[in-house]
Amino acid sequence: VFVLGIDPGLSRCGYGAVVRERAGLRAVAAGVITTPPSEPLPQRLSALAAELRTLLSELRPDTVAVERVLFQTNARTAMGVGQASGLALAAAAESGAAVVQYSPNEVKLAVVGYGSATKSQVQQMVQTMLALADRPHPPDAADALALAICHLGAAPLAARIAAAAVRADS
Amino acid sequence: VFVLGIDPGLSRCGYGAVVRERAGLRAVAAGVITTPPSEPLPQRLSALAAELRTLLSELRPDTVAVERVLFQTNARTAMGVGQASGLALAAAAESGAAVVQYSPNEVKLAVVGYGSATKSQVQQMVQTMLALADRPHPPDAADALALAICHLGAAPLAARIAAAAVRADS
Repeated sequence: VFVLGIDPGLSRCGYGAVVRERAGLRAVAAGVITTPPSEPLPQRLSALAAELRTLLSELRPDTVAVERVLFQTNARTAMGVGQASGLALAAAAESGAAVVQYSPNEVKLAVVGYGSATKSQVQQMVQTMLALADRPHPPDAADALALAICHLGAAPLAARIAAAAVRADS
Repeated sequence: VFVLGIDPGLSRCGYGAVVRERAGLRAVAAGVITTPPSEPLPQRLSALAAELRTLLSELRPDTVAVERVLFQTNARTAMGVGQASGLALAAAAESGAAVVQYSPNEVKLAVVGYGSATKSQVQQMVQTMLALADRPHPPDAADALALAICHLGAAPLAARIAAAAVRADS
């Protein structure tokens, strides 16, 4: 099972692909698509759409997990996030992949073990679960990897044990 | 000059194309793209994106005028409108057209003569300015035609005279 997580954003759109193998979860790709705030909005959106389509056609994930955009957050950036999420959901559906959405709280609960985890805790947990040499960064990429892990239903016990380690650590 | 107006929405996305000729403004096309609320969101968004691309490649407008989405409006539908506007702006930019945005108030001010005009007044004014036999409907299509008229900078005097007629009439 091969899942691409997408954390939509206009200035920074995180992506992270995770495959489940017999030995466990493995990160295949992670990064951030950026568009310059100095460019006009329509050009930024079309550039983001083109990059997402390229990513999807190169990786060919079975499932795309897109962060569900909530409305209460920063009103100044919320419209750009909403527009970016529309592009991500449409591009994912067009690619033929299954498309799912998870709220930020669902992801934190699944990955760290509680819904109010910090960005740093998410990064640390993603590093642990994917056995990465370094913390995945920037946070947008870590969030996208966490979305993919969330969908892969990382073993609750493993998550709880690792969460205890993170809490003891911080 | 050939302008396509787009009033973005997920359930109903209005479009209206207007050309300026020596004799005045002429409506070339108007209608509504709908997606069924019973379908999953990613499929609705990709269907809308595909229909917008078809429309743009068939009409080939010089300029696309997209309604600027404001955040204060209905929070329940605002996310869908934001996602649809992202698709419209990206598709318009990809088509090579110039892309502009106008707020609902700017459109009403340009077309009816005051920013708090009702939907019915917009429909009536669009009918008058485009010399249509009937009121353009549904309102989504009329709003899209009004966006195109707004961009074409319909003569302020004509608008004010017609606005006075609308007010006298209602």
